[in-house]
Amino acid sequence: MQIAIINGPNLNLLGTREPTIYGDTSFEAYYKTLTERFPGIQFHYYQSNVEGELINELQRVGFSFDGILINPGGYTHTSVALGDCIASITTPVIEVHISNIHSREAFRQISHVSAKCKGTIAGLGLEGYALGTQYFLNTAAPSTKKI
Amino acid sequence: MQIAIINGPNLNLLGTREPTIYGDTSFEAYYKTLTERFPGIQFHYYQSNVEGELINELQRVGFSFDGILINPGGYTHTSVALGDCIASITTPVIEVHISNIHSREAFRQISHVSAKCKGTIAGLGLEGYALGTQYFLNTAAPSTKKI
Amino acid sequence: MQIAIINGPNLNLLGTREPTIYGDTSFEAYYKTLTERFPGIQFHYYQSNVEGELINELQRVGFSFDGILINPGGYTHTSVALGDCIASITTPVIEVHISNIHSREAFRQISHVSAKCKGTIAGLGLEGYALGTQYFLNTAAPSTKKI
Amino acid sequence: MQIAIINGPNLNLLGTREPTIYGDTSFEAYYKTLTERFPGIQFHYYQSNVEGELINELQRVGFSFDGILINPGGYTHTSVALGDCIASITTPVIEVHISNIHSREAFRQISHVSAKCKGTIAGLGLEGYALGTQYFLNTAAPSTKKI
Amino acid sequence: MQIAIINGPNLNLLGTREPTIYGDTSFEAYYKTLTERFPGIQFHYYQSNVEGELINELQRVGFSFDGILINPGGYTHTSVALGDCIASITTPVIEVHISNIHSREAFRQISHVSAKCKGTIAGLGLEGYALGTQYFLNTAAPSTKKI
Amino acid sequence: MQIAIINGPNLNLLGTREPTIYGDTSFEAYYKTLTERFPGIQFHYYQSNVEGELINELQRVGFSFDGILINPGGYTHTSVALGDCIASITTPVIEVHISNIHSREAFRQISHVSAKCKGTIAGLGLEGYALGTQYFLNTAAPSTKKI
Amino acid sequence: MQIAIINGPNLNLLGTREPTIYGDTSFEAYYKTLTERFPGIQFHYYQSNVEGELINELQRVGFSFDGILINPGGYTHTSVALGDCIASITTPVIEVHISNIHSREAFRQISHVSAKCKGTIAGLGLEGYALGTQYFLNTAAPSTKKI
Amino acid sequence: MQIAIINGPNLNLLGTREPTIYGDTSFEAYYKTLTERFPGIQFHYYQSNVEGELINELQRVGFSFDGILINPGGYTHTSVALGDCIASITTPVIEVHISNIHSREAFRQISHVSAKCKGTIAGLGLEGYALGTQYFLNTAAPSTKKI
Amino acid sequence: MQIAIINGPNLNLLGTREPTIYGDTSFEAYYKTLTERFPGIQFHYYQSNVEGELINELQRVGFSFDGILINPGGYTHTSVALGDCIASITTPVIEVHISNIHSREAFRQISHVSAKCKGTIAGLGLEGYALGTQYFLNTAAPSTKKI
Amino acid sequence: MQIAIINGPNLNLLGTREPTIYGDTSFEAYYKTLTERFPGIQFHYYQSNVEGELINELQRVGFSFDGILINPGGYTHTSVALGDCIASITTPVIEVHISNIHSREAFRQISHVSAKCKGTIAGLGLEGYALGTQYFLNTAAPSTKKI
Amino acid sequence: MQIAIINGPNLNLLGTREPTIYGDTSFEAYYKTLTERFPGIQFHYYQSNVEGELINELQRVGFSFDGILINPGGYTHTSVALGDCIASITTPVIEVHISNIHSREAFRQISHVSAKCKGTIAGLGLEGYALGTQYFLNTAAPSTKKI
Amino acid sequence: MQIAIINGPNLNLLGTREPTIYGDTSFEAYYKTLTERFPGIQFHYYQSNVEGELINELQRVGFSFDGILINPGGYTHTSVALGDCIASITTPVIEVHISNIHSREAFRQISHVSAKCKGTIAGLGLEGYALGTQYFLNTAAPSTKKI
Repeated sequence: MQIAIINGPNLNLLGTREPTIYGDTSFEAYYKTLTERFPGIQFHYYQSNVEGELINELQRVGFSFDGILINPGGYTHTSVALGDCIASITTPVIEVHISNIHSREAFRQISHVSAKCKGTIAGLGLEGYALGTQYFLNTAAPSTKKI
Repeated sequence: MQIAIINGPNLNLLGTREPTIYGDTSFEAYYKTLTERFPGIQFHYYQSNVEGELINELQRVGFSFDGILINPGGYTHTSVALGDCIASITTPVIEVHISNIHSREAFRQISHVSAKCKGTIAGLGLEGYALGTQYFLNTAAPSTKKI
Repeated sequence: MQIAIINGPNLNLLGTREPTIYGDTSFEAYYKTLTERFPGIQFHYYQSNVEGELINELQRVGFSFDGILINPGGYTHTSVALGDCIASITTPVIEVHISNIHSREAFRQISHVSAKCKGTIAGLGLEGYALGTQYFLNTAAPSTKKI
Repeated sequence: MQIAIINGPNLNLLGTREPTIYGDTSFEAYYKTLTERFPGIQFHYYQSNVEGELINELQRVGFSFDGILINPGGYTHTSVALGDCIASITTPVIEVHISNIHSREAFRQISHVSAKCKGTIAGLGLEGYALGTQYFLNTAAPSTKKI
Repeated sequence: MQIAIINGPNLNLLGTREPTIYGDTSFEAYYKTLTERFPGIQFHYYQSNVEGELINELQRVGFSFDGILINPGGYTHTSVALGDCIASITTPVIEVHISNIHSREAFRQISHVSAKCKGTIAGLGLEGYALGTQYFLNTAAPSTKKI
Repeated sequence: MQIAIINGPNLNLLGTREPTIYGDTSFEAYYKTLTERFPGIQFHYYQSNVEGELINELQRVGFSFDGILINPGGYTHTSVALGDCIASITTPVIEVHISNIHSREAFRQISHVSAKCKGTIAGLGLEGYALGTQYFLNTAAPSTKKI
Repeated sequence: MQIAIINGPNLNLLGTREPTIYGDTSFEAYYKTLTERFPGIQFHYYQSNVEGELINELQRVGFSFDGILINPGGYTHTSVALGDCIASITTPVIEVHISNIHSREAFRQISHVSAKCKGTIAGLGLEGYALGTQYFLNTAAPSTKKI
Repeated sequence: MQIAIINGPNLNLLGTREPTIYGDTSFEAYYKTLTERFPGIQFHYYQSNVEGELINELQRVGFSFDGILINPGGYTHTSVALGDCIASITTPVIEVHISNIHSREAFRQISHVSAKCKGTIAGLGLEGYALGTQYFLNTAAPSTKKI
Repeated sequence: MQIAIINGPNLNLLGTREPTIYGDTSFEAYYKTLTERFPGIQFHYYQSNVEGELINELQRVGFSFDGILINPGGYTHTSVALGDCIASITTPVIEVHISNIHSREAFRQISHVSAKCKGTIAGLGLEGYALGTQYFLNTAAPSTKKI
Repeated sequence: MQIAIINGPNLNLLGTREPTIYGDTSFEAYYKTLTERFPGIQFHYYQSNVEGELINELQRVGFSFDGILINPGGYTHTSVALGDCIASITTPVIEVHISNIHSREAFRQISHVSAKCKGTIAGLGLEGYALGTQYFLNTAAPSTKKI
Repeated sequence: MQIAIINGPNLNLLGTREPTIYGDTSFEAYYKTLTERFPGIQFHYYQSNVEGELINELQRVGFSFDGILINPGGYTHTSVALGDCIASITTPVIEVHISNIHSREAFRQISHVSAKCKGTIAGLGLEGYALGTQYFLNTAAPSTKKI
Repeated sequence: MQIAIINGPNLNLLGTREPTIYGDTSFEAYYKTLTERFPGIQFHYYQSNVEGELINELQRVGFSFDGILINPGGYTHTSVALGDCIASITTPVIEVHISNIHSREAFRQISHVSAKCKGTIAGLGLEGYALGTQYFLNTAAPSTKKI
C-alpha cells in the first residue's frame, strides 16, 4: 500500500514556526515515528513552498498511489488550481490540518481544496496524518484491514 | 476510558435517509462493530433531535468523560448554544461528519460548533467515529496507547 | 387518505397573537371547519414549540401518510435540521404560511425549509391549509379526485 | 366572478421548455381543463414576453376583476415596475409559480413581486392556478362558496 | 426651446396609484399647468410602461432636443439598458422622482440611471418637473434666461 | 408584583463555565440575594436548555406577570421563534446579558430577540437582573415606587 | 420668507477645490447673484467644517425659518447625527449637491441625510440652490407664488 | 461619588424631538429628579452636538470620576474616535440609549462605542440613566451600597 | 446553414454611441462585410430595444436555425427572462460583446445570460460576430468545414 | 506572424481530467491540428503549473510576439500577479477557456485576468484557440488577412 | 522648508492611552527630539479632537507648506470630509499611523483618507513622523537633500 | 547590519511597466544609488515572479538578517502563504509599495501580508525602500543610529 504525504508552504518550518499554534515537533521527527507505526505501508513524503510544484507532485502520484494525505497550508484558502488538480486525479485525497483552522482567522474559513477531497481531518495535531493513514488502511480490502 | 458519542437531528434515520449521501448502514449496526473494535473503551451513545437535549447530554458527560465525539447534524450550522456548551465543558470534543460538508450547500459551510471543538473529522463516512476514538486512544497516557 | 398538519412555534397562540398580522381565529376553531369540509380525509394535527419535537413528528408520519402540511413558524428561517428532515422522509410536504412572509422583515426572506418541500402556499390566511389539502386530493388517483 | 390569468415570459413555451422542470403539458391544454373545472368563473387569459405589456394588462384588469393569478416568470426576480404595478391596482393578486423556485438558482430567491401580492403558491405545478382560483372562490361571499 | 418629458411605468396611474405616496393629481392635469407656466417652451410628452419603448423615445429626441426630463419609475433601479441609452445620446437629461426615493425601500436606493444623467431632482412632487424645466431655461443662453 | 426570570442555554453552568467571561458565582447563589434585596416582589425562576421550552414558559407567564427578565443565552442570536414569542405576549420583557456581547464574536452582534423586547441591559454582570427588576419597580404605579 | 443656506465641509474652498468637479465660482460670488435674483426672500448663509456646528445651526433656524437648503458635503455619507437633526426640526429641508454624486465614488452612494429631507437636487451645479429656493417659493401660499 | 452624564447630538432637543420615539420630557427636567433621587452622588452634566467636544469632555473626566453615563446619540453608529477615547480612559463607562435602538433602522444596529463600554442600557427611557447610576452605586464598596 | 444575429438595446446607435468604447462603424456597415465574408451562410439580422421582443425573436428562430449570435447589450446584466429563454430553445447560442465588459463597471460583471449560452466572445470588437460565425462553421459536419 | 499559446495549471492533464467538462482530446493532439490549419503562423507553446513561471513566459514573449492566447486555468480566479503581468506587456493577449466558466462554480465568476486582456473566448472548447488565432490573423495588416 | 504635523483625536493622550498598542512616550516628548533631528526644517504642530477643526487646519496650511504629516486617528476610518479636504489642498500629505492598523480590528481596514494622500507610513511607531519628514527632505530640490 | 530586499512579481519590469503608475527608473538603477546612500549596510537583493520562491528566500534570510524590505507585488492581495511565512520568521519585515495602492482597484485594498509585517510604507515611490532602510538604522542600537 502506497501513501503520499504532501505538505505545502511553511510546513518545513514545523517545530520552529509559531509553536503555540503548531507545536514544537519538526515534521521529519514525526514522520519517522509514523513510518514505524505503519510498517506495512510504503510512504512517500514531499514538501514544497511552490503552489505549482505541489500540483506537479499531485499529478505524479495521483493516478497510481492508494491514498494521498495533503496539508496545503496557506494554499488551502487561495488555490483554485490545487482544488482543480485534486478533482482531476483518481487517488483519494484526505486534507489534513494540524491546527483547528475553524478557530482561527476569517480568511482561513474559506477553502478551495476541501470540497474536492474525500474528507478532512483538522485540529488533531500531527496525529491527523496517522488517522488519515489509518483511514486508508481501514477502508482497504478486508484481508489487509487491522487496527 | 469513557467516550461519549452524541448524534444530533435525523441521524436516527441513518441507513434510511438519502443513502446516496449518507450510506445505507444504520448507526446502530455501525455502533456494534465499533464497540467490538475498541473493547477496552467504555462507549456511551446518545441521539436526540432536540437541540437543548444535546446540550443537556453534553453537560452531563462533559466534565468526567475522556472524550466526546459529536455529530451535531443540522445544528452544526445554526446552534450558537451548542457551540457555547462545548466551550463550557472540560472534556475534549471532536466533531464528526459522515459526509464531506464542504462539497455540499453553502449554508453547510458555516459552523457554530467547529471553532469550539478540539478538531473535526469530515467526509470519511462512519469510519470517522473510529478515527476519533483512535485519536483519544493515541493521545492518552503512553501505557494505554496502541494501534 | 391521511394528511398530517404540523404547526410550529407560537401557532398555539393563533387568535391571540398579533391579530393584525395573523387574524383572530384560533387554529382549533379553523381545524374543526377544515375537517368538516374534507370529510373523506383523515387529518392528524400536531403543534409544538420545540424544534426537535417537530422533527420527531415529521419522522413519525413521514413514511406512511399521504401528505403533510407544515407551518414551521419562526423555525422556517433558522432550522437546517427541519429542512434536512423533510428531505429525508418520503411523504410529500407542503409549507403553509398564514401571512405573506415576503412582505415582512428581511430575516423572514431566508428559508431553510422551502427548498426541501414540494411547494409553498403563503399569504392566503388559514385558507392555505385547505388549499394544501385540496392539492393532495387533486393530485391523488383519479377515482378519488373531486373539486 | 372574473379572474384574469396573466403569464409572463417563456410560459408560452410550456410543454416544450425544459420539461424536467416545467412538465410537458402546454398551458393552453391545462387552461381548457381549468375552465371546465370552474364553469361558474369567467376566466381571461393573457401571455406576453414583454414586461411593459404585462403591466399594461395588469392596469387594464386590475381595477374591475375579482382576482388575478400572475406567473411573472423571469420578471419575478428583476421587475420593480411589475411590483409597483401590483401595488397600484385594487384587484387582489396571487403569484403562481409552477416549479419550486426555492430549490433553484440563488437569483430566483429574490422577488420584487411577492411582497406586493396577496399571497404566493409555488411548486405545485399547473395545479397552482386551480388552487389560486379556489382561493378566490372560497373567500368570496358565502353564497357563492363551494368545494 | 424643446423639452421632452418621458415618464416610465405606472406613471399613467398618477392620481389613482398609492395617493399617500404620489399625491392625487393626474400627470395630465399637472402637464397642462406646466405648459401654461412655461409658454416659451415647446414640450413633448411621452409615457410608456415598456422599458424598450422608453429607449426608443430617448433615441428619437436625444440628439435634437434641448433637454429631457425623465422619470423612469421602477426601471430606475433595474435598467442598465436605459442608463446606457442616456449615456449614448447628446441631449442633457435630468432625472425626476416625485417621491423621495431615499426614504423608501432598500431596492430603490440602487440606480442604474442617475449616474448617466446631468442631475437628479427627487422628493419635490410634481414640482420637480417645473424645476427641471427652470434649470434648462436658466442655463440656456443669457438672452433667453428669466425667473 | 410578579416578575419571571427566564434563563436560556448553559446559564445553569454559571460559576463553572468560562469564569473569565461570566464570573464564578452560580445563578442560584445570586438569585437568593436578589430575592432578599427585593422582598416585596414575587419572583419566579425558570431555566432550560431547550429553545421551545423557553417559549412554552414565556407563553405561560407572558399574559399575567408584571415583568419578565430573559437571558436567552446563545438563542439570542439564532432564534426567530423566541423573538416571535416575545412579540406575541403582553407582559413587558427586558433582555439581560451578563457579559458585554458587543465586545465578543461577530455572530453575537446579531439578535433576533432585542428588537421585540422593551429594552436591553448588557455587560453589567449579574447586577443586570437587579437593574431590570428595579426598572419594573420604578415604572410601576407611584405608590409602590422606591429606590 | 426666510430661507437658510447651510454649507458643510470644504464648501468654503469652492472655486479653488477640484474645479473640474465643482467649477471655479466661489460660493460667495454665487450667493450674491442668488440674493439678487430672489429679492423678496431673506436669505441666511452659514458654512462650517464642523459636523456638530452644522447641527447647532440647523437647530437654531429649524423651528422658525420657511425653508433650509443644506449641502452637507462629505458629512452626507457619514453623519447619522445630521440626519437625526433634520428629522427633529420642523422647517422643511432640501439637500443640494453641486456635483452629480451618483456618478462618483461608491462611498458617495450612501446617504444618512437624504431620507430625512423633503427632497434632493443633485448635479445641477450652483443652480441647485436657486431651484431649491424656487421650490419653497412655488409651494408657499398662492399669493406669494411667482416664476 | 462623582458620576458624569455626557449626552451627544440632538439630545438637547429632548421633549421637542420626535416625541413618539423619545418622549416629551426635556432632559433638564429629568436631570433635576435624578439628582434628587440620588442625593449622595455628585453629578456632572455635559451635552454637545460636536463629536470632538464629547471626546474632550470624556478625556477631562475619564481619569478621576467614578463612573460615566454616555448617550452618544447618532455618533454611536459612526464614531470610531469616540470608541477609541472610551478605550483610552480609565473611568468605567455605561452607554445609555433612551429608545430601543435594536427595533429601529438598520444603521442603528452598528455601534463603534458599545464594545468599548462596560455595558449598555437601552430602550428603558430616561430611567436608563437612573439604572446606570444605580449600577455604579451597587458595585461600589459595600459600605456605600444601598437600594 | 442559417445563423441569426440578434442585437439588443442601443446597438442600433453603433457608430454614434460612445465611439471610444464601441468604435465608429455602424452595425449595418459591418453586417454587409460579414455576409460577404461568409457567402455560404444565410444570415438573419434582428435588433430591438425591447427585452420581450428579443425573447420573441429567440423563440422564433431558436428551434430551427443552426446558430444564434446574441449581443444582449444592457439586458445581459439584468434579464433573467432572456437567460430563461436561451435555456429553453434548442439552437446553440453564442453571446458576443463588442467591448471587454470585464474591464468596465462592476454591474457589467454580472450576467444572467452567459451561463445559458454555449459560450462567450467578448472584447474583440465587431470581429466577434465573425468569430462566432466561424465557430458554427468549424463545428458543423466535416464536409462543410473550411478556414 | 508569431503567436504564443500559454496554458496554465492542470491543462497538461487535458484528455484525462474530468472529460465530461473538458473533453477527451489531449492538448498536444489538438495543437498538431491547429498548427496544420494555420501554416503561415509560427506558434510557440508553453504549459506550466507554476503561476510565476507563467509570468516569466509572458514577460519573455510579451514584447515581441504578435499575439498571445492564454488559458490561465485555475489562476484566472486568484492571480492578481498574472493580471498585472498582462497589463505590463505590450503584445495583445486573448484569454481562452475551454469550458463555459460562467455556468460553473461561483468562484469561477471572479477573474483577475479578463479585465487586462484584449478579450475573452469561453465555452467554445479547444476551438477557442483557433478562433483566437483567427482574430489575430483578421486584425493584422490587410495583405495578410484571409478566412 | 515648512512641514505641518497634524494629529487627530486621542493622540493628545499618547503615552497614557493603551501603552501596549501606542507606546509610553508622549507626542510632545517625541516632537522635541524630532525638531532637534531636523534642525533645518520649520515644523508646525497641531492637534485636535474635532474633525472639522482638523479640516480648518489642513485648509490653513494646505496651500503654502511644503509637506503635511497627518495622523487622523479614528477619523481615518470614518471621515469622507477629511479625505475631501486632502484632495482639495495642494500641499502633499503623508498619512502616518503609529500602530500597524492592518493587524487590528476590521473597521480599521477601511480608510477614507489614504487614497487622497501621497502615501502612507504605518506601524513604525513615532519614527513614522521622522520617515515622513525624511521623505519630504529627500524629494525636495537636490541642493537641500541629505541623509 | 544586513538588510534583505525582496521584490515580487513583475517588479523586474520596473521602468518598462506602466510608467505612469510605477515611474521609469529600473529597480537595478535605483538599487545602485541606494547601496551608495547607505554604505554601512550590507544589502542583499532578490526578485522572483514565483510565490513559493519568495517564501523560500524569506525563510533563508528570515532568521539571521537585521531587517527585510518586501514588495510582494500582486501577491500582497492573494497570498496567505506569504503572510504565514512572515509570521513564522523572526527578522522584522517592512512592506514597501511604490504606488499608493489605496487609490487603485478595490482588490488591492485587501492584504494578506500587511497584518503580519512590522509596518507598511506605500505610495512614496522607490524612496520607500530608503525610508524602510532608514527605519532599521534608526531603531538599531544607539551607537549605530545616524540620520
